[in-house]
Amino acid sequence: MKSTDDYLKFLSFPSISANPEHAKDMSDCCHWLKSFLDEIGLQTELWNEEGRATIFASDLRAGEDKPTLLLYTHYDVQPADPLDLWDSPPFEPRIENGEVYARGAQDNKGQCWYVLQALKQLLEEGALPVNIKLIIDGEEEIGSFALHELLPKKKEELSADYLAIVDLGMPSKDTPAITLGTRGVASLDLEVECAKRDLHSGTHGGIVNNPIQILVELLASAKDEKGRILVPGFYDGLIPLSEKDSARISYDFDLKEYEALVGTTATGGESDYSPLERSWLRPTLEINGVTGGYSGDGIKTVIPARASAKVSCRLVPGQDPADILEKVCRFFESQSKDGVKVKATAHQGCGAAVRTSTESQVVQAFASAYEKVFDKPCAFIYEGASIPIAYELQKASEAEIVLVGLGLIDDCIHAPNEHFGLDRIEKGKEIIMDAIKNLGNASI
Amino acid sequence: MKSTDDYLKFLSFPSISANPEHAKDMSDCCHWLKSFLDEIGLQTELWNEEGRATIFASDLRAGEDKPTLLLYTHYDVQPADPLDLWDSPPFEPRIENGEVYARGAQDNKGQCWYVLQALKQLLEEGALPVNIKLIIDGEEEIGSFALHELLPKKKEELSADYLAIVDLGMPSKDTPAITLGTRGVASLDLEVECAKRDLHSGTHGGIVNNPIQILVELLASAKDEKGRILVPGFYDGLIPLSEKDSARISYDFDLKEYEALVGTTATGGESDYSPLERSWLRPTLEINGVTGGYSGDGIKTVIPARASAKVSCRLVPGQDPADILEKVCRFFESQSKDGVKVKATAHQGCGAAVRTSTESQVVQAFASAYEKVFDKPCAFIYEGASIPIAYELQKASEAEIVLVGLGLIDDCIHAPNEHFGLDRIEKGKEIIMDAIKNLGNASI
Repeated sequence: MKSTDDYLKFLSFPSISANPEHAKDMSDCCHWLKSFLDEIGLQTELWNEEGRATIFASDLRAGEDKPTLLLYTHYDVQPADPLDLWDSPPFEPRIENGEVYARGAQDNKGQCWYVLQALKQLLEEGALPVNIKLIIDGEEEIGSFALHELLPKKKEELSADYLAIVDLGMPSKDTPAITLGTRGVASLDLEVECAKRDLHSGTHGGIVNNPIQILVELLASAKDEKGRILVPGFYDGLIPLSEKDSARISYDFDLKEYEALVGTTATGGESDYSPLERSWLRPTLEINGVTGGYSGDGIKTVIPARASAKVSCRLVPGQDPADILEKVCRFFESQSKDGVKVKATAHQGCGAAVRTSTESQVVQAFASAYEKVFDKPCAFIYEGASIPIAYELQKASEAEIVLVGLGLIDDCIHAPNEHFGLDRIEKGKEIIMDAIKNLGNASI
Repeated sequence: MKSTDDYLKFLSFPSISANPEHAKDMSDCCHWLKSFLDEIGLQTELWNEEGRATIFASDLRAGEDKPTLLLYTHYDVQPADPLDLWDSPPFEPRIENGEVYARGAQDNKGQCWYVLQALKQLLEEGALPVNIKLIIDGEEEIGSFALHELLPKKKEELSADYLAIVDLGMPSKDTPAITLGTRGVASLDLEVECAKRDLHSGTHGGIVNNPIQILVELLASAKDEKGRILVPGFYDGLIPLSEKDSARISYDFDLKEYEALVGTTATGGESDYSPLERSWLRPTLEINGVTGGYSGDGIKTVIPARASAKVSCRLVPGQDPADILEKVCRFFESQSKDGVKVKATAHQGCGAAVRTSTESQVVQAFASAYEKVFDKPCAFIYEGASIPIAYELQKASEAEIVLVGLGLIDDCIHAPNEHFGLDRIEKGKEIIMDAIKNLGNASI
């Protein structure tokens, strides 16, 4: 079938954005996609430089009295290593029992592909019922740097009523679901410095401050025994869910299954909240790394000159990343004292949380499409992880957002033997087509 | 001068015990020393295997009505790298302004050399006034493993009234000093394990326990805000200094100079004690290393499966290393909980503290010798670092111990351009001779 052949061709480009050696493959993939878009009748432009361009396509012929839907997907993929763990070459897609195995099969070429198939079929059927704008990012896997910079300059091009980020998933194969929000993220480096060089812990132990000791005390001081974060103002201004959304959340969570999957108890974080609330709706402060002194075999009786940690916060609506970073950095740095220098350095690339509502028109249009295609009620979930570009796109387009996709936890994205089902390509196409038709029928 | 030539010859052997490639050099150095000892008239034996043998020498002709002095030094040295920071090759000794530059010039070949010169001269002068036993260790720099194992089997050979460890130093060039004690040491690995694999801190953050968070809380929980160690029983049974020794300690400590040297304030450890008390007379619990999660540039939003730390305690008299290790391990492991596995693993090679008294005969014999040679009162100090073999030797020999030497902080031991003064070789020889004579005159 031509459509499946084209999907396999799309997967055969090693469009790895992280590796400059694949700039030519990125460019080839981009131009192949552009030809496809041109052919089905969209207006296309390439933004940013060759080798990692953003593809922007549109069809605005529905006119000003119809709403505009902006769709976001990406064509760049994660590196494929470790190659020896793949059962077949990652850029030579193969089909087994209806599943397509290749790097990008799901993330995000598979999800991109059903969007394109939906647009193609709608265009073949006649005029589009809404105005369509489409971004196919070439840098999602490395942080969408170019797009971040471009967004403020492209506000007019991106202006839309609705925005659909097509890069999400469902709790299980038979549970259609829409993601109502993702958490934001902000991160920092923390360093404690005491002596000007490493010291012998026999001669100097008990006299000087040990920066590892100071660091563990600092980090431990950031939470109370209930897991609440003690950074002043951290929880200020959190925006709660509406009562309606609260009532509609699918808290269908198998605790035992989850704990078996991760191999530990779901007992971290704030003990006053349920596991899913903690993952979906509460902000966090996590230590992602800690390092200092000796880590080889046996012991080295050293008091190191410095010790450091990496800290990141997941954010929820109402928290501004820059404000939270400032509060967290100040909390740690204010614990500096004579002879103990505490330095907190905020990272670039933070992003705010995104949240939509079941009462949003675009959410309702997609929910109805999911229900029709799956013949089951659509669940409403949240995602604890972050999609920093989502918030930026929402701001630039000034659109109502929805987060959708047909990914499953065992698709092995970012891992060997990534795969995606042809049945989901078909379902995805139907959902996108149906949602677009629903939006065309809705009033704006 | 023959004696200086022989000292330089001694220094020219690259007797690096840590490196098996130097086994032949170790063996050559050992046999050269043995010949020297044979020649001056001592009975010599080699213990343990070739290439890292312990030299044992004795002269017991003073007879049973005279006391026996066991002397301990070593002929193995630290590796010499980084070689490019040496101003001249480390095993081609050179003399500049009376200082001899070479690896081992002080630690411990220089200090060994004046002991041998003293014995040589005494033997040339006639019969020794006391029985002499001498150990020249070939593994001090790597932990004296063979000697540790041999000691229980050599109790008879090592039996002595007095034991002098000649591997210590003085606070300054013009301050003769005897070290009345060293702290013991015991160490362990601490590991916290939660999930069975690394997890994404977006999806799982707030749900599962983060082993780094648990680890920093564990470590922080081991001390209160005054720096007191909260491990139950940690301070039980500490043996205080006698009033006389307390009154005789030299607390001559220049705080400003010390803080300038290390580049930080002397404000670590227990705030109820002075800096020197904290270094010399109080036990510690130090974190020597901590590691977990990501430590590269930027952030990796990971919750690692495990995190770990290295912890060591300095011990004082009254603390049994095995008992302390058990208490510390139990303190940490008892904080395990469902889904959070805390594992504490005691290291081999711990050692108890050593303490002598100003009222000891051997201390008085050496103090009097120092005072005569320097024409100044002898100071009494302690050492915060540990000499694990000292305690074992004291136990095996059942002798009164003294810790002596003429090392200075700027001799650069274990570092490039190590050096030792010919004037100190001469002074050391005089002190050893005089102390031996004093012991010969003392009643036992």
